[in-house]
Amino acid sequence: MYRTHTCGELNLTNVGQKVVLSGWVQRSRELGGMTFIDLRDRYGITQLAFNLETNAELCSEARKLGREYVVQVEGIVTERHSKNLKIQTGEIEIIVDKINILNPAELPPFTIETETDGGEELRMKYRYLDLRRYVMRDALMLRHQIAQEARKYLSNEEFLEIETPVMIKSTPEGARDFVVPSRMNPGQFYALPQSPQTFKQLLMVAGYDKYFQIVKCFRDEDLRADRQPEFTQIDCEMAFVEQEDILVMFEGLIKHLFKEVLDKKMEEPFPRMTFEDAMSFYGNDKPDIRFGMKIHDITTLTKGKGFKVFDDAAYIGGINANDCSEYTRKQLDELTAFVTRPQIGAKGLVWVKWNADGTFKSTIDKFYSEEDLKKWAEMLKSKPGDLILILAGERKATLKALSELRLEMGTRLGLRDKKTFAPLWVLDFPLLEWDEDTKRFYAMHHPFTSPKAEDTQYLDSDPGKVRANAYDLVINGVEVGGGSIRIHDQHLQQKMFKTLGFTEQDAEIQFGFLMNAFRYGAPPHGGIAFGFDRLTALFAGLESIRDVIAFPKNNSGRDLMVDTPSEISQQALEELSIQVKKDHK
Amino acid sequence: MYRTHTCGELNLTNVGQKVVLSGWVQRSRELGGMTFIDLRDRYGITQLAFNLETNAELCSEARKLGREYVVQVEGIVTERHSKNLKIQTGEIEIIVDKINILNPAELPPFTIETETDGGEELRMKYRYLDLRRYVMRDALMLRHQIAQEARKYLSNEEFLEIETPVMIKSTPEGARDFVVPSRMNPGQFYALPQSPQTFKQLLMVAGYDKYFQIVKCFRDEDLRADRQPEFTQIDCEMAFVEQEDILVMFEGLIKHLFKEVLDKKMEEPFPRMTFEDAMSFYGNDKPDIRFGMKIHDITTLTKGKGFKVFDDAAYIGGINANDCSEYTRKQLDELTAFVTRPQIGAKGLVWVKWNADGTFKSTIDKFYSEEDLKKWAEMLKSKPGDLILILAGERKATLKALSELRLEMGTRLGLRDKKTFAPLWVLDFPLLEWDEDTKRFYAMHHPFTSPKAEDTQYLDSDPGKVRANAYDLVINGVEVGGGSIRIHDQHLQQKMFKTLGFTEQDAEIQFGFLMNAFRYGAPPHGGIAFGFDRLTALFAGLESIRDVIAFPKNNSGRDLMVDTPSEISQQALEELSIQVKKDHK
Repeated sequence: MYRTHTCGELNLTNVGQKVVLSGWVQRSRELGGMTFIDLRDRYGITQLAFNLETNAELCSEARKLGREYVVQVEGIVTERHSKNLKIQTGEIEIIVDKINILNPAELPPFTIETETDGGEELRMKYRYLDLRRYVMRDALMLRHQIAQEARKYLSNEEFLEIETPVMIKSTPEGARDFVVPSRMNPGQFYALPQSPQTFKQLLMVAGYDKYFQIVKCFRDEDLRADRQPEFTQIDCEMAFVEQEDILVMFEGLIKHLFKEVLDKKMEEPFPRMTFEDAMSFYGNDKPDIRFGMKIHDITTLTKGKGFKVFDDAAYIGGINANDCSEYTRKQLDELTAFVTRPQIGAKGLVWVKWNADGTFKSTIDKFYSEEDLKKWAEMLKSKPGDLILILAGERKATLKALSELRLEMGTRLGLRDKKTFAPLWVLDFPLLEWDEDTKRFYAMHHPFTSPKAEDTQYLDSDPGKVRANAYDLVINGVEVGGGSIRIHDQHLQQKMFKTLGFTEQDAEIQFGFLMNAFRYGAPPHGGIAFGFDRLTALFAGLESIRDVIAFPKNNSGRDLMVDTPSEISQQALEELSIQVKKDHK
Repeated sequence: MYRTHTCGELNLTNVGQKVVLSGWVQRSRELGGMTFIDLRDRYGITQLAFNLETNAELCSEARKLGREYVVQVEGIVTERHSKNLKIQTGEIEIIVDKINILNPAELPPFTIETETDGGEELRMKYRYLDLRRYVMRDALMLRHQIAQEARKYLSNEEFLEIETPVMIKSTPEGARDFVVPSRMNPGQFYALPQSPQTFKQLLMVAGYDKYFQIVKCFRDEDLRADRQPEFTQIDCEMAFVEQEDILVMFEGLIKHLFKEVLDKKMEEPFPRMTFEDAMSFYGNDKPDIRFGMKIHDITTLTKGKGFKVFDDAAYIGGINANDCSEYTRKQLDELTAFVTRPQIGAKGLVWVKWNADGTFKSTIDKFYSEEDLKKWAEMLKSKPGDLILILAGERKATLKALSELRLEMGTRLGLRDKKTFAPLWVLDFPLLEWDEDTKRFYAMHHPFTSPKAEDTQYLDSDPGKVRANAYDLVINGVEVGGGSIRIHDQHLQQKMFKTLGFTEQDAEIQFGFLMNAFRYGAPPHGGIAFGFDRLTALFAGLESIRDVIAFPKNNSGRDLMVDTPSEISQQALEELSIQVKKDHK
């Protein structure tokens, strides 16, 4: 038996008890004739005390223990003289009478503290040390808790967790697949799933009307910040449901998680917004509604006064920043620099100050009268003391830039508190997206998403106009989940594939099994998938999904700790009937 | 809204209510002027009634519904005239007044019944139809329940469920890896994990002292019956533990599952047996102890009486079959045929009947006196009326054959009831296994298993003698779990790799990250992994793990439903910098 207690549980009620603890040496310090060591494990930190006068030998042994040594100690729980009420065990210490070094440790390459001195690369290489930091422990514990609570809610609602295969069929639609050569079927490959989409639909056909799975998914993409080649979804599907049934069920899930994991009660129904409104008023399809500052279209109010920039622009829109009329030249220059960065790409920024004394001051005073500006201000629901920020140009790009500016202002004004959560359903997405490069439509969600019944009439004549039964759950501007009501009719599914440019033969080869299944009694069905990594990061108040994944990969898809991917033997390649191309050897 | 209730919940308390149900047409029958349809969903079957006299139009509509049509009906819950008390809804029926066909169905290629007429291949191809059968539904629901209960138990014990990566590093030790070519790192490959072994050990180094995960694992083996290329483990690891701590914790898990899932209380501690005893008394390392019939060594009792077969044999052993002295010639011939099959390979079978009247009758009467046979019978704890079955030959092979014979007799005598569960810990496995072909030792469990402290002295002089801190959990002769206390000392780990024939460089390339981790304070640790598919099959009383996997692969590793593995495009191959060898194109 290595321990009677963990390092996180002893307190004044244990005083006088003989205990055995095991853990890591966090730090040690000498104070007069005393040596104190903080012993750490997953559960907490307990102070060990050694007295040079009463036990010189043991004390000098203790002084030799280095940081991160693994030790077992035996001793008596004693009340501390100077208490630390910030930690659970802060009122006691252990007067140690036996030390057993379980494993010595070399000096770690960075400090094992919440604020560490280790750079990202070093921490990834020594991930097992990085994970010792309490900030990482807290993130993984939170992840555990969200997973268990999600399962509890869904199980109570009679969902069945059913595992779908990891080695499936490659399909060229969507992102690139990772593939696995088959040794037993030379020249053939499995693919790793980008999601269990078709399998969960087949489970609906099979009659399992409530399915879920917390499941790894894989995408071979060029990694941008905050993408991982393998990531985890809470994947769900239901049969005999309409969109409303799904929204209610999964709003329930999210509320359950907020309540059980973060102790936040969300009593009101989540607000809902159409894709069109999201684009018009927030400039993107995942609005952060922790704050208002909606975008308003002032195009018609600005035309014909001789200001060429506005007269030439297809769209002019603005946002109102409350109580910012006192912004300095420097602050306004910063905002101009922000919107004209290449990533945002605005040509310039027009600002209008409605000063507290009722006067107006703007960059375009010579074109517009106070009367004109007052009309803009009315449209933007401004009041004296506010600052109006205006961008102009092509509609879509300008809205996008306004969205970025709005978020930046929200951050500057402290309106984006990490501990405030503002969920939002975004509804009525377009079914299809036109791609200028390839001159064809792509499915905005995926090819199995059903069009709205009232819009199917436009499928042939004006496909871009067709809206889908698709929905996203957005929290604080982060898309945490998305889904749709699926097509369950084989003829409509065939039509969709045709609209997406599949030949009949291609559709058959790739999705024949699904269309075949639809011939044998497919129920109406739909579902949703949540990005589990992202949801956890959001709950934890962390920026990057890497911080909530135990062993993430870097931006080149490498695991720096185990040093993979790596070369495999010639024999292995031969067994798989493949070879690496010469120019890459 | 597609339904107010499921097809499994209405009963007499609902009589008079207007309800809406949705489901599949299981079967329909006509009886006088009535048409009855069994409507099926995941939850049960509800009878729909149509009266030709009172609603001719609707009734004729109902008569047109084919098997497996998906329909929605509206009607009134009514008490049945002839009740079916075998099913929950058997006391009521729905007098339907509206039918809505949600999706028609072609005639399925086999009957959707527990006893189906579909062959295995057909059912695999149309797995979505096979899964509609209640026997499959029951298996998947049981699987769901075991998973949730396992998580509940482990979470309550403060285990954290932590996901480890699916794309890891290939290591040549153990079975063959499936590999994934990396597009971003040309010429390099990831491997799919055969288990999360090294990652869970790193989690222990990282201080997460109780870890678990229900996780997919992958092995590219030539598939034998009841093997799958991807399978699922309940994978667990603990730090600061000795073997006893692990046995107690996971005996608790198994008892919890038996109680919560099968309502079977197991109050006694699980029996324990050493590997050596298992081999001596049961002839294999996973004894089925639902019944006794132990193997006894009678070598010394049989020598020197002129029976050459026994005199020449290194080992002679027997089992006692209670109350079988009346076995007929035919039955004994069957047993002889059984043990002399090539798969078992015994040269012949010697039997001794101790008749109820006290006399003996055997195949070897001319060599042995009644006195001799009585001594054997005493050793085997026989009594009058019993039958003794004896095999002779090389020790290991003979014990293996006796094991098969024992199991066969257990089956014949009805001693292997599927609903009786006999768990057993098998302990003290050898650390190493000698392989005659390659003339080297292999790790019996894996290279991270620790030797018993008292045996490490033999690591250099007599490696085969060293026992490991390794244990298996066996239930009814099925190995459902296994694990070990791991090495946590870098020097001992290096020594192990050397004993296993690794060069220092190989060990460094393949497992350097783990040995590196051990330098920074690794705690003592150990763990266990349960075969989740096998455990579920055992609980379900099913023979094959395929019956508890939603979408299994066949013996060639193919998924017949989605038709994979399959070829991928030339463009995809090029992006991955690999090519398929010509002779396989």
